[in-house]
Amino acid sequence: MPLGQRAGDKGDSRYCGVEADFSDDMPHLLTHNLTGGFDFVLAPLVDPSYRPSLSTNNGSEGFALSVAASDLILSPAQWSSHVVGKISSWIDLDSDDEALRMDSETALKQEISWASHLSVQACLLPLPKKGVCGNYARCVNQILQGLTNMQLWLRLPLEKSSPTENESFDARYDSLHSGILNDSWEMWNSFRLLCEHHNQLCVALDIQSSLPSVDSLLRWFGEPVRAAIFHTHAFLTNARGYPCLSKRHQKLITAFFDFSFQIVISGTSVHKIPQERSDLSAGDNGSLGEGAPVRNELKPYLEYVAYLYQRMDPLSEQERFELNYRDFLQAPLQPLMDNLEAQTYETFEKDTVKYSQYQRAICKALTDKISDEQASLSKMVLMVVGAGRGPLVRASLQASEEAGRKVKVYAVEKNPNAVVTLHSLIKLEGWESVVTVISCDMRCWVAPEKADILVSELLGSFGDNELSPECLDGALRFLKPNGISIPSSYTSYLQPITTTKLYNDVKSHKDLAHMETAYVVKLHKIARLAPTQPVFTFVHPEISPNRSNQRYVKLRFEIPRDMGSTLVHGFAGYFDAVLYGDIHLSIEPSRPTPTMFSWFPIFFPLREPVYLPAGSHLNVEFWRCCAPAKVWYEWCVTSPTTTSVHNVNGRSYWVGL
Amino acid sequence: MPLGQRAGDKGDSRYCGVEADFSDDMPHLLTHNLTGGFDFVLAPLVDPSYRPSLSTNNGSEGFALSVAASDLILSPAQWSSHVVGKISSWIDLDSDDEALRMDSETALKQEISWASHLSVQACLLPLPKKGVCGNYARCVNQILQGLTNMQLWLRLPLEKSSPTENESFDARYDSLHSGILNDSWEMWNSFRLLCEHHNQLCVALDIQSSLPSVDSLLRWFGEPVRAAIFHTHAFLTNARGYPCLSKRHQKLITAFFDFSFQIVISGTSVHKIPQERSDLSAGDNGSLGEGAPVRNELKPYLEYVAYLYQRMDPLSEQERFELNYRDFLQAPLQPLMDNLEAQTYETFEKDTVKYSQYQRAICKALTDKISDEQASLSKMVLMVVGAGRGPLVRASLQASEEAGRKVKVYAVEKNPNAVVTLHSLIKLEGWESVVTVISCDMRCWVAPEKADILVSELLGSFGDNELSPECLDGALRFLKPNGISIPSSYTSYLQPITTTKLYNDVKSHKDLAHMETAYVVKLHKIARLAPTQPVFTFVHPEISPNRSNQRYVKLRFEIPRDMGSTLVHGFAGYFDAVLYGDIHLSIEPSRPTPTMFSWFPIFFPLREPVYLPAGSHLNVEFWRCCAPAKVWYEWCVTSPTTTSVHNVNGRSYWVGL
Repeated sequence: MPLGQRAGDKGDSRYCGVEADFSDDMPHLLTHNLTGGFDFVLAPLVDPSYRPSLSTNNGSEGFALSVAASDLILSPAQWSSHVVGKISSWIDLDSDDEALRMDSETALKQEISWASHLSVQACLLPLPKKGVCGNYARCVNQILQGLTNMQLWLRLPLEKSSPTENESFDARYDSLHSGILNDSWEMWNSFRLLCEHHNQLCVALDIQSSLPSVDSLLRWFGEPVRAAIFHTHAFLTNARGYPCLSKRHQKLITAFFDFSFQIVISGTSVHKIPQERSDLSAGDNGSLGEGAPVRNELKPYLEYVAYLYQRMDPLSEQERFELNYRDFLQAPLQPLMDNLEAQTYETFEKDTVKYSQYQRAICKALTDKISDEQASLSKMVLMVVGAGRGPLVRASLQASEEAGRKVKVYAVEKNPNAVVTLHSLIKLEGWESVVTVISCDMRCWVAPEKADILVSELLGSFGDNELSPECLDGALRFLKPNGISIPSSYTSYLQPITTTKLYNDVKSHKDLAHMETAYVVKLHKIARLAPTQPVFTFVHPEISPNRSNQRYVKLRFEIPRDMGSTLVHGFAGYFDAVLYGDIHLSIEPSRPTPTMFSWFPIFFPLREPVYLPAGSHLNVEFWRCCAPAKVWYEWCVTSPTTTSVHNVNGRSYWVGL
Repeated sequence: MPLGQRAGDKGDSRYCGVEADFSDDMPHLLTHNLTGGFDFVLAPLVDPSYRPSLSTNNGSEGFALSVAASDLILSPAQWSSHVVGKISSWIDLDSDDEALRMDSETALKQEISWASHLSVQACLLPLPKKGVCGNYARCVNQILQGLTNMQLWLRLPLEKSSPTENESFDARYDSLHSGILNDSWEMWNSFRLLCEHHNQLCVALDIQSSLPSVDSLLRWFGEPVRAAIFHTHAFLTNARGYPCLSKRHQKLITAFFDFSFQIVISGTSVHKIPQERSDLSAGDNGSLGEGAPVRNELKPYLEYVAYLYQRMDPLSEQERFELNYRDFLQAPLQPLMDNLEAQTYETFEKDTVKYSQYQRAICKALTDKISDEQASLSKMVLMVVGAGRGPLVRASLQASEEAGRKVKVYAVEKNPNAVVTLHSLIKLEGWESVVTVISCDMRCWVAPEKADILVSELLGSFGDNELSPECLDGALRFLKPNGISIPSSYTSYLQPITTTKLYNDVKSHKDLAHMETAYVVKLHKIARLAPTQPVFTFVHPEISPNRSNQRYVKLRFEIPRDMGSTLVHGFAGYFDAVLYGDIHLSIEPSRPTPTMFSWFPIFFPLREPVYLPAGSHLNVEFWRCCAPAKVWYEWCVTSPTTTSVHNVNGRSYWVGL
């Protein structure tokens, strides 16, 4: 039974599980927990006392695994929907005891093979016994090669002690490898690197009563965490005796819901629930007399989790729209080389916030240009370059009306299909006397007069990446010396992120080109490792004599020390544009234009993720390169390690002029 | 004129160059130096005062590069054989001055384009002005993509100051990136990583009068160093006033010769050569009167280098044989699945040292088994398993004769083609009464009696890699309980190495399989980063009840602190086998069996090279995995960084049973 109804929420976190001990009566175990309100059971599939080497019949013929009866006791649908297998926790593949190691390898392979036979969706791998567990990872990696659908969830505690401030290089590495690991993320990172980032290898986090720092928690949001196992002793007790969670835990679980982690309740009840409540609950089940199900003692914990789930704000319209785009890679547009389709214009024209910002900016520019006294005498020449189907023409005319300033508008558009729509709009609205449509590329138009104000919207997610600078350079020929460009400037921003999902998606193409391409993505399951930093700025009109649209920047990101070590999969890119004066369009995360949806961020991947030891900083270099027919970016990391320069000569990704 | 004749030496280091200043009379410059005895000139191709931004005609039409006249002044053969271009040293792509940076990029591209037009074989890139030179590397990387044959030699000083012993992690990284780099290897490493290990990017080392530690020098032998530029002030003066080198420099230059680095003399003469010698030299040139060439003032330095070259020991017969195999990847044999060819038997049978070791071992085993008193009464049953064309049968009979012990020999061989030769050998030698030929795989032979001594030679470069353990397990059925196996044990060894050449060769296949395969290689241009460590040991007969041929080992290599940072491209593998008692066969580098040539080392590559910061250690894990039809290795690095487990499930490389 899902935790509750939340409009638009299709995430896995609606389902809550419960951890159980081995039972030789699996149907009863399942019924007991499903009627108790849980959606699935996390339970061992094999008798925990089984040891391969002690098995009486270890010749291959007469052998039968010590499982809870046969696969027939549940239907295939029950196994796959309601059971997550729990691999025996005695397994220790990195033991110094060779016999135990051998037994562990045999048992692990047998248990996963059995779980796979049952078609359960996932198996929980026991917590590694040591920090670096090469043999465990090697064995899991071998198993992963043969798994078709099943996921393996590596169980890890959510913990991280703070490192000593001035730990030396050697001390840090030594502690890292002596098995006294104090950061479970390090354990995870080493495990997944050994397993080559396999996309069926995931994480289940054990949540205890104490939590590490917020920065260190954040790292997990970029990792493939599937479940958060809340132990009963992690709960507090409220005034009425019921379980509840601390404020920090509440905040965490809300984040988990948002990131689609599934909650699992584990342990025995440590709360004495008042009698009447218990009775009520038994009544709910509607069972009477002999064989009445025993009340599920963990139900109060489930009810509290459900309460937290239901308490969340509903998804906004924008969030619901964006839900299907979350962490989904899209190739950036090539608006200069390709003509946009009607559907694309349709979508973007709906972004009312964007056009109202333009209207405000144009209005302000008009009133700055012409004083109230001059209003009736002067007429401004306003050119909309890249007019599309006309939304900026409309914004211009509305601004003109709002400001009480007269304008003459040229609408320049290179896409002949859009020009058709533009003409009919003008006819429909009766703007023929004010607006002249020019079907021409702004870079080669011979304008009959010069403009006072140039209005354009040629911005990409990374500001200049759709070649706004090159287009406006072409249009500058027909701007008056003291003319205004709207936008007057724009700056791109970058920040390093952890994003296992996107990295695996990019890698799945198995070619270099995809690893060196920037993508437009609604970023969601990511960890932002540092505040953004400005990258390239373009100002219009740019009047310096040696102006060039090539750019080169070195960035240094400081990773918060209490975050611990991290892995950078690439960079999220954003822009902030100054339309005019203090009127911005921005998708920079610290000051986005509210409810504007025209731009998702851009994502620049790294071919190999870069490991950042705790307390280190990340040096990055970015280039914007220009050739006669194309513009492209190159990028690299130079510290703490050095990567290759990505996308050399724009071999994988470029924007055509 | 080469430095001298050394039988078999085909290396580039026979040719010596000279560094020269820009001259607008290139033919004269060349003649002057070639008649002076040098083989090539390292000289600027463009006037060093040229700056693109100051060029009067920087529109593209009227532009002409300030070069020393046209390409016609020398013949194409002269340009390509006798000139290495020297890129202007004012170039600084990482300057804070944007104008200088832009000029540098333009000039670098123009000069290399010009050099490429002239078909010179290489250009020398000026020393980076800063430790981390991202923009320089980015620009060179762009250029490299378009170069067909020409090499680019990055000029670097051969220097490394010792780091403070207990430098902290942060301090180390900070100093690394603040531009105050004290180890030119770091500069090189960062540069080549940015350029993605491009195989036309090489190194030219500037040799000064002081040298860094031996360990730190060694690192360069795994790098693509093409030239060592000896400055005249690096030379000492001998009693007669002539230039000479310190003992350390002499040793270094001899190593350079061995590794085919080309020597270049640079600078002005700082030695006053006595008059009579000078006259003699002029006489040699046989020039008289007007236009007589000016004596080359650097000739005494060249003569001293030639003297050092000629003083070297000639290449031994074995070295000459191995010359063509140096750093050449060979797929390991599959002797169990495939039958060897006659040519292969022919080659291996020539290894007399190997068979004399076998003969000694068998002789010793026979005398240990049978006392002198028993000699005439007893007859030992000796089985040669994997007899091939008979060399071990011969060794056995010679040992029997030498020891004065009687033997009955079974020669078991699975290759029916080799059995033909074996039969004719026995007939030819008249061994019919002593030797019985069995045409059968030892793993399934039903022996008519049991053996006292089992003789086999199933070893690969890594000991067990040709499945000697599995074969001998099969043969153990017919060994008497107190029987002897020759070899009685063998152990594999590993050591981390730097080997740019092999890494690039492996990578050139552009697939995963080649990156996870072990190769047999005559290792030459490598840097050995630590002493070898034992890996897997097999003992025969092995009588423990739970014996398995699976193995797992964790190794920790300590990299000498004074070596500085390094890059590991993979691991060199060797073996040491105990034939009997103290008689070994070994290719382990610290105690190889002299003049034995049957085995080259094995090379296990890493998919991505691992950077080792100075003073760090390297943790490696190796597995020997067994399945019914195949045996394979898996391997990974777990410190200082973690790699994926290579060759999971033997997907890329395995040996068939």
